[in-house]
Amino acid sequence: MTKSFEELLDQYAEVAVKVGVNLQAGQRLVINVTVDLAPFVRLVAKHAYQAGAKYVYIVWNDQHLNHAQLEYGSDDSLLQYPDWVIKTVVDFVKNGDARLSIYAEDPNLMADIDPQRLQIVRKVAAENFKPLRDLTAAGIHPNYAVISAAYPGWARRVFPALSDEQATAKLWDAIFAACRINTPDPVAAWKAHNANLQARQDYLTAKRYTALHYRAPGTDLRVGLPQGHIWIGGSSVFNNIECFPNIPTEEVFTLPHREQIDGVVSATMPLSVQGKLIEGFALTFENGRIVKATADKAEDHLNHLIDLDDGARSLGEVALVPHSSPISQLGILFYNGLYDENASCHMALGDAYRYNLENGEGMSEEAFNAAGGNTSSIHTDFMMGSGLLDVDGIHSDRTNEPIMRQGEWAFTV
Amino acid sequence: MTKSFEELLDQYAEVAVKVGVNLQAGQRLVINVTVDLAPFVRLVAKHAYQAGAKYVYIVWNDQHLNHAQLEYGSDDSLLQYPDWVIKTVVDFVKNGDARLSIYAEDPNLMADIDPQRLQIVRKVAAENFKPLRDLTAAGIHPNYAVISAAYPGWARRVFPALSDEQATAKLWDAIFAACRINTPDPVAAWKAHNANLQARQDYLTAKRYTALHYRAPGTDLRVGLPQGHIWIGGSSVFNNIECFPNIPTEEVFTLPHREQIDGVVSATMPLSVQGKLIEGFALTFENGRIVKATADKAEDHLNHLIDLDDGARSLGEVALVPHSSPISQLGILFYNGLYDENASCHMALGDAYRYNLENGEGMSEEAFNAAGGNTSSIHTDFMMGSGLLDVDGIHSDRTNEPIMRQGEWAFTV
Repeated sequence: MTKSFEELLDQYAEVAVKVGVNLQAGQRLVINVTVDLAPFVRLVAKHAYQAGAKYVYIVWNDQHLNHAQLEYGSDDSLLQYPDWVIKTVVDFVKNGDARLSIYAEDPNLMADIDPQRLQIVRKVAAENFKPLRDLTAAGIHPNYAVISAAYPGWARRVFPALSDEQATAKLWDAIFAACRINTPDPVAAWKAHNANLQARQDYLTAKRYTALHYRAPGTDLRVGLPQGHIWIGGSSVFNNIECFPNIPTEEVFTLPHREQIDGVVSATMPLSVQGKLIEGFALTFENGRIVKATADKAEDHLNHLIDLDDGARSLGEVALVPHSSPISQLGILFYNGLYDENASCHMALGDAYRYNLENGEGMSEEAFNAAGGNTSSIHTDFMMGSGLLDVDGIHSDRTNEPIMRQGEWAFTV
Repeated sequence: MTKSFEELLDQYAEVAVKVGVNLQAGQRLVINVTVDLAPFVRLVAKHAYQAGAKYVYIVWNDQHLNHAQLEYGSDDSLLQYPDWVIKTVVDFVKNGDARLSIYAEDPNLMADIDPQRLQIVRKVAAENFKPLRDLTAAGIHPNYAVISAAYPGWARRVFPALSDEQATAKLWDAIFAACRINTPDPVAAWKAHNANLQARQDYLTAKRYTALHYRAPGTDLRVGLPQGHIWIGGSSVFNNIECFPNIPTEEVFTLPHREQIDGVVSATMPLSVQGKLIEGFALTFENGRIVKATADKAEDHLNHLIDLDDGARSLGEVALVPHSSPISQLGILFYNGLYDENASCHMALGDAYRYNLENGEGMSEEAFNAAGGNTSSIHTDFMMGSGLLDVDGIHSDRTNEPIMRQGEWAFTV
C-alpha cells in the first residue's frame, strides 16, 4: 500500500525524533530551523512531546533577514551577533539535552551580496560559535541529528523548471527516498543500512592504513592518515545514546593528517557557501596546506573561505561514499551539503572531528594538532567523488590495497 | 492615485518603524512576532536597517508549537519556559534599545485545550515576565510600538465565509484603513490625529475628576480616580523618544483607584484570552474587587483569569474611545485586543500603568498601591463601550459633567 504524503511526512518527523536524535523521555530538545519550515517543525514537536520531551525549544533562523541585514545594515550592524542563542544551545548541551538541526536554505539567496560583507558575518558567526566548538572538542555532545526538509526557497533551485508547489513536492519525494521513509518499515531499514556501514568502518579502521591515494580526472592526491585514526559510519553514541548524526548518511569517514596532504583534488560538484555557489574548483596541497585554489566561478569566495583562519587551509575529514548510493542514483544536484555529500566521496576544509582519533576527545588543541588533527572555525564539505574515482589504502610498508574502484567499494564485508 | 498592495504594505512597515517605534540610528530593535508573519517582518527589518538600526533581533513565536506542547506535553513540560528570551528583551530595554511587538494570533486555536493546562502555562509565563514588568514599573521603557499584521490563521476567524486568501486581503485592507496608511501622507495623518488625542488628554487631566460614572444597558459602574491621575492619548515619550505605543490608537486612558470601583459592568464584545473566547460576561465590583463574574461562554476561563493573582480581580485602566472612531466604523469584530479596544470604550483587568499617575514611576509597589494604583501579572483589556454608553465626570464637590453621551465625546477641544 502506498503511503500518503501526510503519512510519509509524519513518519519522517518520527524518524527524525526516534532514530535520528533518539530522544529520551525527560530530555529537552533544541531545534535549529528556518521559519519557512514552521509547519514541518510542528510535526516534529508533536513527536518529541509524544516521546516524552521535557521541552522543545526552537532557534528560528531566516536567511531573508540575514539578507536584509547584509543589504541595508550599517558596517557596525554586521558585527552584531545574538550570542544568547549560542548560550542557550550551550546550556542544552551541558545539561545533557538533545539537538536537532534542520538544514535547508536557498543556495542562491546571497548571490547579490558583497563577498567582503559576507566574509565579515561569517567570521563573526564563527567566533560566536566557539563555546559550542569547545564543548565538542572536549567530547561533550548532545545526542543529535542533522536532517533537511523541503520548502519552496530551496526546492525552486533544485528544480528550476517546475512551479514552487511541484518543485517542493518533488524534493520531498527525493528526501523520502533518500531517507528510506518510502520503505514499509523505515526504522528496520535504518537498522539494516547501519549494520552495513558499521561493518565497513570496522574493516577500514582495522587496516590501519598510513595514507590514502585518490586518482580521478583532475585529481591525484595523497592523504596521510594519523596513527590511531578511526573510521566512522552510520550511528554514533553521544551522550550515552545511540543517534544518527546525519539523516540521510551513506558515508564512512575519518580524519586526515593535517601536514601530510600532497597533490591536486578537483571538485566534482559546486560548493554552496553562505548562499554563494563556487563552481569548477581545484585545490593544490603541499605538506597539508592549500598553496593554490582556482575556480571557474566565485574564486574570490573560495579564497575568502580558506583565508578565514589557519586551519581553513587544510582538511579535517575524508569520506567515502559509493557512486551507486541511493542518493547518487536519484541523479539530483541538491545544492545542500547533507544530501550532496552523501551522493559522493568528499572531503572537508577545516575542523576535524575529535572522535575520529583515538583519545582525541579531551586532548588540548596543541596535542590534537601534533597528532595530525586539524582545527578551524569552519568545517566545509566539498564533493570530489565520481564513477571514475579510484582510492587505494597504503600500508606502512608502502604496499597498496584497492578501497574503491570506479567509485564503488573494492572490498566486501 | 490608488496605492498598490505592495506600496501599502511597504508604507505600513515604514510607519511601524518611523512613527510607531520612531527608531533612532544606532539603536537595536527587538521584534516579537509569529513565524507566520515572516514575509512582513522582513519588510520591517529592511526599513529598520535603512533607518540605521544597529541590529534587528526577532523573538519568533508560534501558537501551533504552544498548542503541540499543551496537547502532547507532560505536566512537567508545561512548567518549562525559555527564560533566555526574557533576559534578551530585558538586555535590550536596559541598553536603551527599541522594541516592536507584532500582535496577531488565531483567537480560537486553544479552544480544545484543557483550561487547567492553559492556566498553568499562563501563570508560568506571567512569572517569567516579572523582570520586564519590574523595569516598566521603574519607568524604564524602550521606545516601542504594538502593531498587528494579517495572516490566514487570524484572518479566517474574522471573515469565516471567505477563502484564506480573500480573508487575509480583506483584513489587510481593514488594517491599512485603521492605521491611516490609505491616506496620501500617512505620517501627516498621524500627526493631525495625535494633536486631537493630546488635546483631549490635556482637557481631562486638567479636570481632576474624583470619579467616573458609566451607564449603559447592563452597566452602572462608579470608578474612582486617584489623586494625580493622568489621562494619556496618542504618542508618548519613552527613552527620550516620541513613539506611538499602539498603532492604531483611538483611546484616551487613565488608571482607576483600585479600591473605589463599585457596581456592574457588562462587556459589549467577546474577550479572547490565550486562544479562548469569553463571551457575554459581566463583572460586579465592591470596593474595587470583583465579587461576581458571569459569562455566557467560557465562564471558567474568566474565573481562572481573575484568580491568577490578587490584582487580577481589580482594574488597571479605564479608556475612552468614541463610538464613531474609524475602527468602530469598519464594523468588524477583529478578535484582537489592539483593534477591538480601539473600537470601543474599555477597561483592563490587572496591572495599571505607572505613567498614568504623577510620580508613579519609581514608586515602590506598596506606595503605588496605597495611592490607588493596581498591580498584577496581567493587563487584559475588555470592551464595554457602545452607542448607548454615557460617561460622567464627578468632581470632588459631587457635581457631574458629561464626558460622553451615547458613545460620543460630550466636550469639544
